[in-house]
Amino acid sequence: MNELELVDQLRKMSGRSRRGVIRGIGDDCAVFRPKTGEDLLLKTDQLIEAVHFPKSMPPETIGERALARALSDIAAAGGDPRCCLVALAVPRKKSEQWILAFFRGLLGLAGRTGTVLAGGDLAHDDKVHCSVMVVGASKRGKALTRAGARPGDRLYVSGKLGKPWDQKIEPRLALGRRLSGKATACIDLSDGLSLDLHRLCKESRVAAQLEYVPIVRGASLERALHGGEDYELLFTLPPHVKPLAGTTRIGAIVRGNAGTVWFEGEKLPPRGYDHFAG
Amino acid sequence: MNELELVDQLRKMSGRSRRGVIRGIGDDCAVFRPKTGEDLLLKTDQLIEAVHFPKSMPPETIGERALARALSDIAAAGGDPRCCLVALAVPRKKSEQWILAFFRGLLGLAGRTGTVLAGGDLAHDDKVHCSVMVVGASKRGKALTRAGARPGDRLYVSGKLGKPWDQKIEPRLALGRRLSGKATACIDLSDGLSLDLHRLCKESRVAAQLEYVPIVRGASLERALHGGEDYELLFTLPPHVKPLAGTTRIGAIVRGNAGTVWFEGEKLPPRGYDHFAG
Repeated sequence: MNELELVDQLRKMSGRSRRGVIRGIGDDCAVFRPKTGEDLLLKTDQLIEAVHFPKSMPPETIGERALARALSDIAAAGGDPRCCLVALAVPRKKSEQWILAFFRGLLGLAGRTGTVLAGGDLAHDDKVHCSVMVVGASKRGKALTRAGARPGDRLYVSGKLGKPWDQKIEPRLALGRRLSGKATACIDLSDGLSLDLHRLCKESRVAAQLEYVPIVRGASLERALHGGEDYELLFTLPPHVKPLAGTTRIGAIVRGNAGTVWFEGEKLPPRGYDHFAG
Repeated sequence: MNELELVDQLRKMSGRSRRGVIRGIGDDCAVFRPKTGEDLLLKTDQLIEAVHFPKSMPPETIGERALARALSDIAAAGGDPRCCLVALAVPRKKSEQWILAFFRGLLGLAGRTGTVLAGGDLAHDDKVHCSVMVVGASKRGKALTRAGARPGDRLYVSGKLGKPWDQKIEPRLALGRRLSGKATACIDLSDGLSLDLHRLCKESRVAAQLEYVPIVRGASLERALHGGEDYELLFTLPPHVKPLAGTTRIGAIVRGNAGTVWFEGEKLPPRGYDHFAG
């Protein structure tokens, strides 16, 4: 199978659903028609063999995970996914069946979340390297950001923290949409509670008091605080807004130096996963 | 410098120009506000060390080239670039100065073409691996595609072919915009005339008669036909449309099997650069 045949096959697999995609796989660019009154949310994320996943991970799982990570950011912005582009490099010895299995995994999640595979780029490299770019949509001016938390807001998280790093990712898209127009700030927990809460506070120019950490069975507090790969939503609600089902109140936003997180009477260092920590 | 500091630095370097980017670097998603009556053009492209460029290439050149390749596809769609996302993986031993130099190169071209750096993702890997995603815009329904060429149309190319593979890429954005509403089909020559003309003809369900190949000084006909990395535009105009300055007529669209290209009395095999040719 050469590239033209592979692209033809992917075009067939990606199906007919449009979601604003006027022209998809098979041209120089994909063409997307936005709806009036919507802002678009853009996110790119990398998934690299031996960095983000082991060589032994099945291609279906890699494909699903690559899309899921980017969708988690769309969820954090309160958005609705529309389409994605996928840049994939694979070793020359991988069969076309491997590539098709990768896309089957990715397209399974794409189908469940209404995300159209609109295009991409294929190359050969020494190991598997994937970048997924997702386009989502939200009502004009309603995208959730990290920047709106205010002292007095209450801090919540979905689910429990400290999951095994290879647990299936379920992007919290339904919750994100419910938070749109309610939450003052939101971020997805990809790099660990301590680092991601620090980021939210820094962008909002506030501090936080962390009071409680919901931990998955068998995980340590250390892992729940700093482990990353949870893909839950961390968000803030003003005091008058009722908590949402399935979420846990874990603290409050307070005045203080931008980015400071207090926990058990001490400053919590932002020690989550930082690719570029010196 | 850790990731937070590096991202802060990139945010400063990316400047204040908006181009519809309501929220850029530093949040889970970038937020982009489309203009009414516009379609968006989406393109992603990979640039990999030891595959697309040698280890010795300076970071500024890699950064510029990574963006230029994606902008060439926006040009082929007759679009106007708006913003880009950059997923970059670099070896741990590269300094932050290397990364900042990469982005200086990229942002130089971004500034000249009105492309805002709206976000991205940084990771460590064994070697440099970059994916750039560009969002462009065109008037609703006016995006050029590969699919509209008709028998009787004339075939044109910008510039001359067979360039050295590492020549500076000048995306033909001004030409692309002039072609919008005039050309019946357009593609950028990234993989070689023989393969890209085959693709244009296949999508348009027509054949082509290639009559003349403009060759850069010192290059062979073989290289001009099959070499790739030219980043010129190949396009078709109906017979009544006047040729555009700086472009060369190289043949005509004819009836025939979809994708067939005739040259010097024989079928020209699509032999350009195909990452996945068996």
